[in-house]
Amino acid sequence: MKTYKIGLLGLGTVGGGTVNILQNTLNEIERRLGHTIEISIIAVRDLNRARPVDTTGIQMTENPEDVVNHPDVDIVVELMGGTGLAKELVSQAIRNGKHVVTANKAMIAEFGNELFALADENNVIVNYEAAVAGGIPIIKALREGLAANKIEWLAGIINGTGNYILTEMEEPDADFDKVLKVAQELGYAEADPTFDVEGIDAAHKLTILASIAFGIELQFNKTYTEGISRITAEDIHFADQFGYKIKHLGIANRTENGFSLRVHPSLVKKDVLIANVNGVMNAVMVKGDHVGPTMYYGPGAGAGPTASAVVADIIDVIRAQSMTVEDRIPGLGFKADQLAQAPVESIDEIHSAYYLRCFAKDNAGVLAQITTKLAELEINIEHLHQEPSEENPDDATLVMLTEQVKESKLNQALEALIALEVVDSEIQRIRIADLG
Amino acid sequence: MKTYKIGLLGLGTVGGGTVNILQNTLNEIERRLGHTIEISIIAVRDLNRARPVDTTGIQMTENPEDVVNHPDVDIVVELMGGTGLAKELVSQAIRNGKHVVTANKAMIAEFGNELFALADENNVIVNYEAAVAGGIPIIKALREGLAANKIEWLAGIINGTGNYILTEMEEPDADFDKVLKVAQELGYAEADPTFDVEGIDAAHKLTILASIAFGIELQFNKTYTEGISRITAEDIHFADQFGYKIKHLGIANRTENGFSLRVHPSLVKKDVLIANVNGVMNAVMVKGDHVGPTMYYGPGAGAGPTASAVVADIIDVIRAQSMTVEDRIPGLGFKADQLAQAPVESIDEIHSAYYLRCFAKDNAGVLAQITTKLAELEINIEHLHQEPSEENPDDATLVMLTEQVKESKLNQALEALIALEVVDSEIQRIRIADLG
Repeated sequence: MKTYKIGLLGLGTVGGGTVNILQNTLNEIERRLGHTIEISIIAVRDLNRARPVDTTGIQMTENPEDVVNHPDVDIVVELMGGTGLAKELVSQAIRNGKHVVTANKAMIAEFGNELFALADENNVIVNYEAAVAGGIPIIKALREGLAANKIEWLAGIINGTGNYILTEMEEPDADFDKVLKVAQELGYAEADPTFDVEGIDAAHKLTILASIAFGIELQFNKTYTEGISRITAEDIHFADQFGYKIKHLGIANRTENGFSLRVHPSLVKKDVLIANVNGVMNAVMVKGDHVGPTMYYGPGAGAGPTASAVVADIIDVIRAQSMTVEDRIPGLGFKADQLAQAPVESIDEIHSAYYLRCFAKDNAGVLAQITTKLAELEINIEHLHQEPSEENPDDATLVMLTEQVKESKLNQALEALIALEVVDSEIQRIRIADLG
Repeated sequence: MKTYKIGLLGLGTVGGGTVNILQNTLNEIERRLGHTIEISIIAVRDLNRARPVDTTGIQMTENPEDVVNHPDVDIVVELMGGTGLAKELVSQAIRNGKHVVTANKAMIAEFGNELFALADENNVIVNYEAAVAGGIPIIKALREGLAANKIEWLAGIINGTGNYILTEMEEPDADFDKVLKVAQELGYAEADPTFDVEGIDAAHKLTILASIAFGIELQFNKTYTEGISRITAEDIHFADQFGYKIKHLGIANRTENGFSLRVHPSLVKKDVLIANVNGVMNAVMVKGDHVGPTMYYGPGAGAGPTASAVVADIIDVIRAQSMTVEDRIPGLGFKADQLAQAPVESIDEIHSAYYLRCFAKDNAGVLAQITTKLAELEINIEHLHQEPSEENPDDATLVMLTEQVKESKLNQALEALIALEVVDSEIQRIRIADLG
């Protein structure tokens, strides 16, 4: 039984959770691992701040370099967040020959290529299970559990705040702003909710999932990102009538010439399991060519779940230390020299079915004008629903579900519709996810 | 890049799927692994039988000892099933210093303790991801992904045949016998369906899941097993009215003095995600003390899904070969000398809420007699529904949901009810699963 020493960067929510596990569940971990784990040193921003965990016997410092340069530390656990100082410290730790465990999705999504290359040069491991979907072992499922498959696509609810808001918006009289306010009061959403609501957080996570699913470099800047702030209670109501829920999905799939990575609101058929994932919970569907559709569900955030993933990574690092470097699981699940070079395509290239909602004059012949125009442009309508507008008795609300069409073609059709005098200039357009 | 050589015992459905993956997805696997995998030899029962896969270049034999004794074989993959010859051959392979990958749930559940001990003596790995829930990497999730948690309980739909039958029984006019016949025609159920329908297959899988969740020896003979053949369309209908689905669950949880392992039909609240797992699909919920509730979903059987798990195990074995023996993941996820000795308790010891359905005389005062008797025995009724019996106009059908009570106490109460002259001697009793 050896003792492995941990240096912690950051003692916030997840840091506290990690200390808690290593204090209170250590016996269970030792039963599994046959070794023990000790926290040697923790860097915090302010030594005088009160902590929810007992740090007796642990060296505390305000200088994070003390952690990454500490001669006794085997594994540096980075839980401070951000992409500036965190990245510098992680790089320094790697150069010092220390393994790294991190929960930092932004750092991995934006600088992972560089960090994994540096880790390979220095023969150390960088693990990041906690960076995606909190406590769900989805990185492990993709890098190891499904390793016999060519992954066809994946689709995930990977931001709990957004899923909480969309779930609550199913209730009567719950519009986006109202629900967001409640989410903020409950601590599910930040004072500035942009990061969650506009899909940036989800895009970080999707970028990571896509890389390990397909074996491609991390390309955060190529990930299309669209938030949920334009979704109305009316959309949720109409989607329901057609047999769908609206979920904020991160979707990665193979295309004719490469890959598509995108985060956007999506209509999902109610009988698909992921449509029933509610509240702050996360879930990721993964379709492999041999295994078929699988799904992984659990809490995507919070001290306990995220720390659960952090400590599992620590255990994995300890086990993998004795392996030859070439036999270790590569950072992105595929050998660095085997990453595919096919491009991440623009959102214009995807094929999707669409939900469209618009206002139109409630005259005889208007429906004919609209449907004729769409037929001319080869957009097939699968369902159509018309009802008098609540806001203006002279208008009608028109909801259409299209068949699959290339997005660039749909955009042309929307422009043509708007050019019609009878159609209001704002057309709501939500993609329909095909998760069959 | 090294070449690892596989010897296959059996070339049925899963064997064929395994060959298919190693022929058609090998490039993707090499991109991940940095090594290649070759099938050297396959033992089959009858060399003259037509095969759905191309075995050109592979040595074929009717003598399985050729496989386990083959000097070039690194990993023996056992896909023949059964607990007699399979166990002998696997033991011989282990003694020959070969790693083993198996999909054989019966062999692991009944003889795993012995096989893992033998593997430890011989410094080889025995992997068995495919033995539980087909393509879902649930063994990996429990042994590794959730390794930072003390597992509180798990509950799974781990037999696709049973879940298909219960799902179809939700349709109008679909009783058990009728649906079983359809399942047999579709190939979802065997001609003799006992193994699936009476829960034996699920009990094998639950035994394995419980051992790796809690760190206890495999104790198949202590697993309580109750099938679904006594569930009627009426039960499914009443459960629905009360907001529940009926699922055949394998449940393992900690009790006051030990553990409870049981497979039985269970009422599950509709808003719990696993209640929405339909058809032949499998899913396992796992509750860890830090991570909270998680769920793993996918196909539980079939060539592709099961072979996906088999090949993932092969990849893991190849990676783990260079590790020191003490750092490898132990067979049951916990070090052999750390397995807990607490007992698996009898089903009488569990605490559960219950669904009860019985016929009673439709007289004034009958309800009072029954409820008084239950109150005397401290069984609290949470919901009660009474309706005239369709079969006999003098009878009423009575459905009750009780609060949590110890099973032995409930059994006393049932005896007391049957002793009442007004109650028919057959009382349907289904446990209500508490998956909150």
